[in-house]
Amino acid sequence: MSAVHEERLARAALSQLTEPGTPRIRDLVADMGAVALYEELLQNRNPQGVLTDFALRLADNDPERELDRAARQGVRFIVPGDDEWPSQLDALEPVRGASNRGGLPLGLWVKGPLRLNELADAVAVVGSRSCTTYGIDVAGQMSAEVAKAGTCVISGAAFGIDQAAHRGALSAQGKTVAVLACGVDKFYPEAHANLLRYLAEHGAVVSEVPLGWSPMRSRFLARNRLIAGLGRGTVVVEAAARSGALSTANWTTQLNRPLMAVPGPVTSAPSEGAHQLIRNGEATLVTQSAEVLEMIKPSGEYLFDMPRGPEHRRDGLSSCEAQVLEAVPVARAVAVDSISRTAGIGLVEAGKALRKLAEEGLVVQSDHGWKLSRDARS
Amino acid sequence: MSAVHEERLARAALSQLTEPGTPRIRDLVADMGAVALYEELLQNRNPQGVLTDFALRLADNDPERELDRAARQGVRFIVPGDDEWPSQLDALEPVRGASNRGGLPLGLWVKGPLRLNELADAVAVVGSRSCTTYGIDVAGQMSAEVAKAGTCVISGAAFGIDQAAHRGALSAQGKTVAVLACGVDKFYPEAHANLLRYLAEHGAVVSEVPLGWSPMRSRFLARNRLIAGLGRGTVVVEAAARSGALSTANWTTQLNRPLMAVPGPVTSAPSEGAHQLIRNGEATLVTQSAEVLEMIKPSGEYLFDMPRGPEHRRDGLSSCEAQVLEAVPVARAVAVDSISRTAGIGLVEAGKALRKLAEEGLVVQSDHGWKLSRDARS
Repeated sequence: MSAVHEERLARAALSQLTEPGTPRIRDLVADMGAVALYEELLQNRNPQGVLTDFALRLADNDPERELDRAARQGVRFIVPGDDEWPSQLDALEPVRGASNRGGLPLGLWVKGPLRLNELADAVAVVGSRSCTTYGIDVAGQMSAEVAKAGTCVISGAAFGIDQAAHRGALSAQGKTVAVLACGVDKFYPEAHANLLRYLAEHGAVVSEVPLGWSPMRSRFLARNRLIAGLGRGTVVVEAAARSGALSTANWTTQLNRPLMAVPGPVTSAPSEGAHQLIRNGEATLVTQSAEVLEMIKPSGEYLFDMPRGPEHRRDGLSSCEAQVLEAVPVARAVAVDSISRTAGIGLVEAGKALRKLAEEGLVVQSDHGWKLSRDARS
Repeated sequence: MSAVHEERLARAALSQLTEPGTPRIRDLVADMGAVALYEELLQNRNPQGVLTDFALRLADNDPERELDRAARQGVRFIVPGDDEWPSQLDALEPVRGASNRGGLPLGLWVKGPLRLNELADAVAVVGSRSCTTYGIDVAGQMSAEVAKAGTCVISGAAFGIDQAAHRGALSAQGKTVAVLACGVDKFYPEAHANLLRYLAEHGAVVSEVPLGWSPMRSRFLARNRLIAGLGRGTVVVEAAARSGALSTANWTTQLNRPLMAVPGPVTSAPSEGAHQLIRNGEATLVTQSAEVLEMIKPSGEYLFDMPRGPEHRRDGLSSCEAQVLEAVPVARAVAVDSISRTAGIGLVEAGKALRKLAEEGLVVQSDHGWKLSRDARS
C-alpha cells in the first residue's frame, strides 16, 4: 500500500471515529501522525484515553470500504498534501494543547466539480437563518457580484443568508462552495435538497464529517471554522445576537483575516450582531461588493473609487466668488453695490468675482445689473 | 459706557459688518480685540483692507439701535465672557492665520428661555433634509431618549432629520436648541415657522448672524461649526454623500469630540454618508440612545450593558456534556451505548454526563434509556 493511500485511509478512519476538531485527536495527529495514531488504536492501545471514547465506533470502522462507497457516490476524500488540498485551510493549525475545538480537519469529503485548490480568493458570506428580505437581497446581490468577479462564495447552505449567498453566486454563473455540518450525502436542511444537488453538480459540497452523519450543534460550530478558513475574508450580512454567523466571524478574527459586516436598520434585530461587530472594531462596515473585493484581494489588485456626490460647477469657485454668487438674486437683476453689500465683499473684488462668474456661465449681466443665469438656477 | 457694554456693542456692530467666521476678522479680533477693531473702522482706517469690504454695510451700522430692536423682540446678544456664554464653544478658537472660515463667533443672538450655559452635556443630532421615514423615526426616538436623560439636543431646524431631532426632544419635554444660518427672527424654512416659534418659547433659537439676515450657503457652512461646537458629540442619522451634515461631522472631528453615525440599509442613499463615516473610522456606529449617552457623558458616568441574546440553559454545560446532549434523541429513548457511539464519548463519561443532564432537567431516563426532557425540546 502506498504511503499516500495509507495516510488517506488512516485519516478517513479517524474522521469516522472522532468528532470534528476534538483537541486530543488534533494534538495526537500533530504529534505522531495520523497513520501511527490509527495503528495504535487498531493495536488496542489507548493513547490519552481516546480508545475509550472510540471503542464502539471502532468496532464497525472500515475506511477502505467507506472510501469505495464514497467514490461510488462521486464523493472524494482529500487530505493535507493532496494537490486539491486548499492551502488557505493550513492557517487553522492551532496552538498545540489548546482546549477548544479547532485545528486542521483530518480531511474533507467533497462532492462536485469545483476543485478546492482553485478557490484562491474565496470569500465567506454568512448570516442568520431568520433574516429579512433586506438581508436576502443584499447577500444575493453581493454574492452575485463577487462571484462575477471570479471570487468563490463560501457558505453553509442553511436557510436565509447562506442560501441567498449560494443562489447569488450561482445566478452569476460563479463559483460557490457549501460547507456542511453533516455528511455531504445528507440534505440538510431537507428543504434545500435541490439547492444542495445543484451545488454538487456545479460547485462543491464539502464536509469534514463522513457520509451519513447527521448535523449536530458541535458539528456546526466546528464547521464554521472551515467556512472562515476557506475564505480570504468573511462578510456577515445579518446576524442576530448569538447567531451562528458570529461564530464564523470569531474564527475569521482568530485567523487574522478581514471580517466585514453589512449594516442594516438599527430597528432590525437581525442586524444587531453585525452592528455589534462594527462597533467593537472587529468588522469593517461594507455596503457593496467592490468594498468586499478590495479587502480580500491582495493589496492594490482591486481598488475602487469612494462614493461621491455629483460634481457641482460651483465646486471650483474661490470663497470670495462663492460668497458673491450667493448674493446674486435669482430673478430681478441688481447693481453691483447691492451685491457687494449683501456679500460683505468690497466693490472692486465683487466686480471681479461677478465677471469670473459670468465666464463660468453662472451669472448674467443686463442693463439693470446682475442676476443668476438659467443654468445656475437649476 | 461700561467696558462690558462697549465690548457687546463692538461685537454686535462687527457681527453686522462681516460674514460669520471670516478669517481676517477672526484674526484681527484675536489680535487687537473687538472694541479696538471697531474703533479703527469708525476712524475710517482700513486694517488688512477690511474697511474696503465693509464700507457699504458700515454706512448704516448702528449697534446700539440694533441691540434695542433685538431686546424688544425678546432677543439677547451674548458674547464671550457673559455668564450665559456656552464655554464648550471656546474650543472653536482656531489656529491663527488659518485661511478657512471658523473660529469663535463674535457673539450669539439668542431667543428663548433656555440659557446656553446650562447645556453642559448637549448632543448634536444632524442629518439630511431628504431623509427617509426610517431616519425620521430613529432621529426622533434617539433625541427623545437623550433629552429624557437630561441631555440637550442641538440641531439646525432644517427639514428632515433636524426637525425630527427637535420634535423628539420636545416630545420628551426635554431641552433643545436650534442653530440657524439666518437671523433668529426669520423663519427658515418657512414651513417650520411654527416649530421655530415653539422652540423660541420652550428651548432656544440661536444664530451668529444678525436679525433680518437671510440664510446663505456660506452661512450654513459657518453655522455647522456652532452645532458641532455646542454639542459634546454629534450623531449623524442619515446623510447622503455631500450632505451638509457631513460638514457638521467634519467640525466635530476637528474639535476632537465623539462623532457617531447611525447605520441604515446599504440600499438607502441617505445612509451612504453615515456608512462612509463609519468605514473611515471617523464615526462610531451607534444604534440606540444608550450608546450615544455613553459616549458623551464623562467617562464612567453612564454605562450600559452590551446587547446579548437570551441565556440558554445549555450555556453552562461542559463540551463533553453538550456533545452527549446532542446525541440524545428527541422522541424515542435509547440506551447509553447508542448515545456513547453517536456522541463519540466513552461509555463511562457518557453515563456521567447523562446523569448531570438529568439533574439539569435536560434529559429524562425511562426503562428504554434516555431521551430529551420536554423542556430541552422546547
